[in-house]
Parts: sequence; structure tokens; C-alpha cells
Amino acid sequence: MSHPVNGLDDVVHQRTRLGILAILNETTKADFSYLKNALELTDGNLSRHLTVLEDANLIEVQKGYEGKRPRTWVKITKLGKKALAYEVEALKTLVHRVERSR
Amino acid sequence: MSHPVNGLDDVVHQRTRLGILAILNETTKADFSYLKNALELTDGNLSRHLTVLEDANLIEVQKGYEGKRPRTWVKITKLGKKALAYEVEALKTLVHRVERSR
Repeated sequence: MSHPVNGLDDVVHQRTRLGILAILNETTKADFSYLKNALELTDGNLSRHLTVLEDANLIEVQKGYEGKRPRTWVKITKLGKKALAYEVEALKTLVHRVERSR
Repeated sequence: MSHPVNGLDDVVHQRTRLGILAILNETTKADFSYLKNALELTDGNLSRHLTVLEDANLIEVQKGYEGKRPRTWVKITKLGKKALAYEVEALKTLVHRVERSR
């Protein structure tokens, strides 16, 4: 059997992107500032990771206004939920394997 | 409470390096070819990740000969075991959180 890490997708597994998907999985949508604060990121860093996830069709980004204030909303897609669920299964297999070898 | 991904260390969390540490945690030492095959890597790719782990004092690399054949052995350090255990605890927290939100 192949090692559990071989099934991990770097797009999803990368620390910050995994955090973005995990947060979005808990909610209908989150705004840019919320994600930025929750994951302790700079604007540039968050933007960069959102682009990677959007290009992979794992999230949707909607830019709009709330009154005069620009606001960016982010939602997880169906594919994003599936990718996160797959990652979590692979992590569980890995955790189980590491704990067995202690 | 900070999001569980904020505690992850990229040196340990990166897919390939996580695999290297998980394998080394199961054994006294592993040779280069074994890791390369188990993790489906090229020589260059494995070397690069071993250097990152060695620079962080998470593994030890020993080059030697077996008969006339050059052989590279890799061992996890005490610090490497600690870092892996820490990563696994963070992953468990994350997995638990994602599963709770399904």
C-alpha cells in the first residue's frame, strides 16, 4: 500500500490553505478580514492563497460593497468540500500510522 | 483559541517531509533508496527535503559504503520525534474540528 502522504494534494495540504478550507467548511461564507485574522495572515499572503484555491475551483470569491465599504466574501465549493474531506481521511490514516509506531 | 493550523510548522507539515519523518519514526534508520521508493520521489526532490530536515536538526544523514556501494542512511533525531508528535496532535485537533462541522 502506498504511504498515506502520497495521496495528499499540496493545493489542499498546505497549512494556510488547509486552514482556509477548514474555516469555510464551517460556514456559508466568510469575509476576507475574518480569514485574515483567524489565520494570522497579511493581506498579500491571504490573497495569494485564495487565488490558488480559486484557480483549483475549491472556493469562490465574490467582491462587493457593504454600504461604501468594499468587502470580499469567500465560499467553499462542492469540490472544495470533497477535497477537504479527502485530505482529512488521508490525515487520519497518517495519524493512525504514526501513533501505532510510537 | 487560535485556529489549529496556526500551530503547524511548514518544515514538518509539508507533505513529503511529513512522510519522511513518519517513516523514520517507525524504524532505527532508513536508506535513501527506501525513502525514495516509499514516497515516490526523484533523487533531487528527496535530497532537497532531507537538507531542509537536516538543517532543522530533525534528522541525521550518514553517508557511507556497503562494500563498494555508496549508501546514505537517514535517522530521525529526538527533536524530530518531538516535532512529529507535535504535528500529529495539531492534525488531530484539526481533523476533529472539521469532522464536527460536517
